[in-house]
Amino acid sequence: MKIAVIGLGYWGPNLTRNISTVPEVDLAAMCDMDESRLDVQARLYPGAKATNSLSEVLEDPAIDAVAIATPVSTHFELAKQSLLAGKHVLVEKPLATTVIEAEELVRLAAKTGLTLMVDHVFIYSPAVQKLAQLHREMAFGDLRFIDSVRINLGLVQQDVNVIWDLAPHDLSIFDYVLGRGPRSVLTAARVGPGAELATLAHLHLDYGDGLIASVHVNWLSPVKIRHLLIGGSRRSALYNDLDTSEPVKLYDRGVDMAEGAEGRRQVFVSYRAGDVLSPKIEKVEPLRNLIKHFASCAETGSTPLSDGWSGLRMVQALEAADRSLEKGGVFVEIPDA
Amino acid sequence: MKIAVIGLGYWGPNLTRNISTVPEVDLAAMCDMDESRLDVQARLYPGAKATNSLSEVLEDPAIDAVAIATPVSTHFELAKQSLLAGKHVLVEKPLATTVIEAEELVRLAAKTGLTLMVDHVFIYSPAVQKLAQLHREMAFGDLRFIDSVRINLGLVQQDVNVIWDLAPHDLSIFDYVLGRGPRSVLTAARVGPGAELATLAHLHLDYGDGLIASVHVNWLSPVKIRHLLIGGSRRSALYNDLDTSEPVKLYDRGVDMAEGAEGRRQVFVSYRAGDVLSPKIEKVEPLRNLIKHFASCAETGSTPLSDGWSGLRMVQALEAADRSLEKGGVFVEIPDA
Amino acid sequence: MKIAVIGLGYWGPNLTRNISTVPEVDLAAMCDMDESRLDVQARLYPGAKATNSLSEVLEDPAIDAVAIATPVSTHFELAKQSLLAGKHVLVEKPLATTVIEAEELVRLAAKTGLTLMVDHVFIYSPAVQKLAQLHREMAFGDLRFIDSVRINLGLVQQDVNVIWDLAPHDLSIFDYVLGRGPRSVLTAARVGPGAELATLAHLHLDYGDGLIASVHVNWLSPVKIRHLLIGGSRRSALYNDLDTSEPVKLYDRGVDMAEGAEGRRQVFVSYRAGDVLSPKIEKVEPLRNLIKHFASCAETGSTPLSDGWSGLRMVQALEAADRSLEKGGVFVEIPDA
Amino acid sequence: MKIAVIGLGYWGPNLTRNISTVPEVDLAAMCDMDESRLDVQARLYPGAKATNSLSEVLEDPAIDAVAIATPVSTHFELAKQSLLAGKHVLVEKPLATTVIEAEELVRLAAKTGLTLMVDHVFIYSPAVQKLAQLHREMAFGDLRFIDSVRINLGLVQQDVNVIWDLAPHDLSIFDYVLGRGPRSVLTAARVGPGAELATLAHLHLDYGDGLIASVHVNWLSPVKIRHLLIGGSRRSALYNDLDTSEPVKLYDRGVDMAEGAEGRRQVFVSYRAGDVLSPKIEKVEPLRNLIKHFASCAETGSTPLSDGWSGLRMVQALEAADRSLEKGGVFVEIPDA
Repeated sequence: MKIAVIGLGYWGPNLTRNISTVPEVDLAAMCDMDESRLDVQARLYPGAKATNSLSEVLEDPAIDAVAIATPVSTHFELAKQSLLAGKHVLVEKPLATTVIEAEELVRLAAKTGLTLMVDHVFIYSPAVQKLAQLHREMAFGDLRFIDSVRINLGLVQQDVNVIWDLAPHDLSIFDYVLGRGPRSVLTAARVGPGAELATLAHLHLDYGDGLIASVHVNWLSPVKIRHLLIGGSRRSALYNDLDTSEPVKLYDRGVDMAEGAEGRRQVFVSYRAGDVLSPKIEKVEPLRNLIKHFASCAETGSTPLSDGWSGLRMVQALEAADRSLEKGGVFVEIPDA
Repeated sequence: MKIAVIGLGYWGPNLTRNISTVPEVDLAAMCDMDESRLDVQARLYPGAKATNSLSEVLEDPAIDAVAIATPVSTHFELAKQSLLAGKHVLVEKPLATTVIEAEELVRLAAKTGLTLMVDHVFIYSPAVQKLAQLHREMAFGDLRFIDSVRINLGLVQQDVNVIWDLAPHDLSIFDYVLGRGPRSVLTAARVGPGAELATLAHLHLDYGDGLIASVHVNWLSPVKIRHLLIGGSRRSALYNDLDTSEPVKLYDRGVDMAEGAEGRRQVFVSYRAGDVLSPKIEKVEPLRNLIKHFASCAETGSTPLSDGWSGLRMVQALEAADRSLEKGGVFVEIPDA
Repeated sequence: MKIAVIGLGYWGPNLTRNISTVPEVDLAAMCDMDESRLDVQARLYPGAKATNSLSEVLEDPAIDAVAIATPVSTHFELAKQSLLAGKHVLVEKPLATTVIEAEELVRLAAKTGLTLMVDHVFIYSPAVQKLAQLHREMAFGDLRFIDSVRINLGLVQQDVNVIWDLAPHDLSIFDYVLGRGPRSVLTAARVGPGAELATLAHLHLDYGDGLIASVHVNWLSPVKIRHLLIGGSRRSALYNDLDTSEPVKLYDRGVDMAEGAEGRRQVFVSYRAGDVLSPKIEKVEPLRNLIKHFASCAETGSTPLSDGWSGLRMVQALEAADRSLEKGGVFVEIPDA
Repeated sequence: MKIAVIGLGYWGPNLTRNISTVPEVDLAAMCDMDESRLDVQARLYPGAKATNSLSEVLEDPAIDAVAIATPVSTHFELAKQSLLAGKHVLVEKPLATTVIEAEELVRLAAKTGLTLMVDHVFIYSPAVQKLAQLHREMAFGDLRFIDSVRINLGLVQQDVNVIWDLAPHDLSIFDYVLGRGPRSVLTAARVGPGAELATLAHLHLDYGDGLIASVHVNWLSPVKIRHLLIGGSRRSALYNDLDTSEPVKLYDRGVDMAEGAEGRRQVFVSYRAGDVLSPKIEKVEPLRNLIKHFASCAETGSTPLSDGWSGLRMVQALEAADRSLEKGGVFVEIPDA
């Protein structure tokens, strides 16, 4: 399968590097407006066509698929043109800037029968796949809470707030592990001074069944923290993406609560404190897994894990999060996709 | 100064132990309904009167002060009687269960001229005193955010939710460092199943001037985390109460943002990454400092750091947090104390 | 069983505190030359006789046993007198300052039929008991190495070097886990300037079967580290005494080496990288376990885990370590006890 | 300056990657016997000549310098031929397998006036340069000890033991920071079963002035540890290469010892416990710094930090360490280079 990479800014070079080394795909072309970026990549991958002309890529019948890594505001237009040109499409997250655009892309992919996949890269990491497997096997019991902290001194961006920049990682992990999107979201955030857009935010997402998941994203933190806690009635897990030796820990610890005969007021509590297990996690670059999965889905027509629908659910949640922020922090409902 | 300890459950023995070793005060009496608890303490401190009669304590003219460490629901009544009996009063946090009760205690203390102090023990820890000093010296510049995480497998309680149990620690630290209480609070929490009361909660507190402080308290976490981040325009700090060797770290790291001539849209961002300093923090038990301060205030008539007013501000915030939770998560205003 | 504690300096108060709370034993008396220390303890334990007269203790027929926590140089004389007076004896580590003295105490205990036990407190900790259990169950396979680091800013002592102060902890753990003492020891240490005695030392102990265990003890380290690594052919373990949540980690990781047909030169190597398990470790104070064990051995006549023989093996190793240091660092043999 | 890389196994690709991106140098040629390795690199750097013929490289007058990254046993022969062919030479550590060979290379470089530099890559890391600067500025006061732990599950090698594989990193850091080599070395090591060569070793190096530095290298450790402690009379430092956020910590903690009038027996000890400082350390790839330094030295004729003499001192220490191991662990003297 021949892939063209569109956009060679921050993320594009990761795509070209991985595409060039995955045997199932060929890096056929690279496209960017910026000549200097194009030059750097052209020197690294002399076998791929380097061009600043999008139409040259889309009109090339030898190219089967495009990977779009341009600014968010251009995702919709580029993905749409690519699908219309008959290319399978991999888009950097988030899929689009509005629900309406995301819906149109999903429809277009369905109509053309082409593969539309979103670059929710974390769900292709062995650690997150292990969490999802544990949840499928009921290792956690009933989920009591999910709490994710993703903070560091980040690149403050001027066209997108911290929610659209960082929270997609957490939302895509939740979506994949839980197999569903949130019903409503509440945002508590800090906006400026000196920056119009939110630079830190807490999201609280209601997933139904009493499960509330929280996300703290922050560009202003002096320390880097990547903690995702899953609290269950049977076991709990901590996924620390910065712990290279033990990224996932499974705790056989918990509080058991049981109602008494007279109802909720009378609660019996017991505590468990057992072993901690750090399962072996393969060291594979998630983006490499993702590209293999994209190639396989495009060839066989099977549905990607991070298909257009998951991209749409993500944009719905992000839009709702922004709306909650505008309303001063209230739960905003998210319609079914 | 002769002190009686009332209530010998979880916290009371810490009071008796510290009172018995601080030279400025004498442990004169101990009072509890439970004979076995009384016996244990009586054996440890044979010099102190052990009694199950409150009136015996309050009517004893030799006793100058009482330290109340009973369940929250009894704080108001016991503190009131003690003040009326002419005793200086130290009350375990929170001061009372309602704002009305807290206000009455503050008035009564003012009228009687006696010292009313709340056991906000963390503000007497050398680490928090260092944070307050750094803020006074403007080391942080403008505060951008405060974020506190206080989670562990905690003792689920049946008469009080996790907010009233754990958040007073964070609220008292904020109150002390900032020198003011919050204007409004929003609560996102998980209630049940199997426990009517909230077992985990996120509070977002608006302190004005664009400063939002967040608190995550949780009785269900398999891991114990005690992180308090203060983000400032000049420097930031992390206070990790579990790091015994470097509890406070001061980061000369940050993002500087400046508006362009055309207004907020155009933002210039620059990054600093400098040294990290872990200032020396004395190893002193905070409760020991607190008791010395109580004795000194009672003797000299000076106002305690954690006086009745700070106890009242705390109860106001907790009441508002509960109200926000009842309303499904909206910002609830807190009146001026 | 009635116990007298002799010596109330650094370690004695830990003995009185634990003896006073273990139901199987009674704190009958306390003895020290220093009146102020005696006073402090007398106030805490008014039920125990406080005296500066050793003979008063030894001649009291109501006293069954003594626990000796005096300076090392006095251990031999006090333990000897106590055994001769018919008391069971618990001695702070190391048992004596010379092999000859240690041997005499072992003989005397055998002759009198009294219990002689050394306060090798670490082997009564749940973490070390777990390590010993894992080794008994062959969880490690063949042992390849043991490496212990016990360093911090320590109390520099003027009558004993860092080896005699800190290494007994590690040597006693090795003795207990392996079930045997070392055959020879090599010491590399730093002596002075400004202190005649070694302030840091590395010991290398040959336990036979190709197993060399190493110990780094250091009073001058700015950071506190307590790492004990056990490397085995099947699994390996790390015991980190400062990690309160996961003190023992068992690694299913290793290198498998196999000789080829032509002999040692040709080695086949394969790597395993599996799960990491942190088994649940009970939180019990080791000294409490030790005192219960002492009481039980004295009553039933059974042999303590840390009996006089283990105390003797320890003194042999320490003496040999000093000799190696004097000789400028060579392996010095240790005779069979 | 045009450089050829000889040897494209484990380390060679790091050289080609850095040489290709440092502006001061050109990657002119790559040489390896293995066609598949050559192919991989040729595709990445199509501008460089790819050849399996050494003479083609050495006879090319356009090539100014060679970087040798072949197995240790070939370093001497390749470096010698390259110098004789008039090329500046950068050799992977260690410089040679024997002192005699290393000496010949040093002499040859002096005679030809060409630059001979050893790839002691760690001394070009910003963290080690900070340590050296601190020592030059007397920040540590008198050095009391150096202790380095470099252990992990490593690639067990069949032609070289763990000392020759890992200890050069530590020895080169000591050499650079101290400005001198060790006077003698003692080795305590484990020599398999199943592997003839040492798989773990402790080196104790006497640097004179009472300073003993220790190194623990280990291929069999389940955990990865990279700790280098420098203990001084004034301050101490910990360099933890795995701590990406605070690799160097400077401790204002220590023990001050002073002799009394009557001599060494009487020692006065006082303790300091001050701040901890983590100075900002630039994030630069050390190999990039090294290549720039090599280019600069070759052009200007100035002496490299890691010149042939430092490579010779290293081989002397390694040879002596092996001899100590053969002798069963005694201090073996190292002659002046």
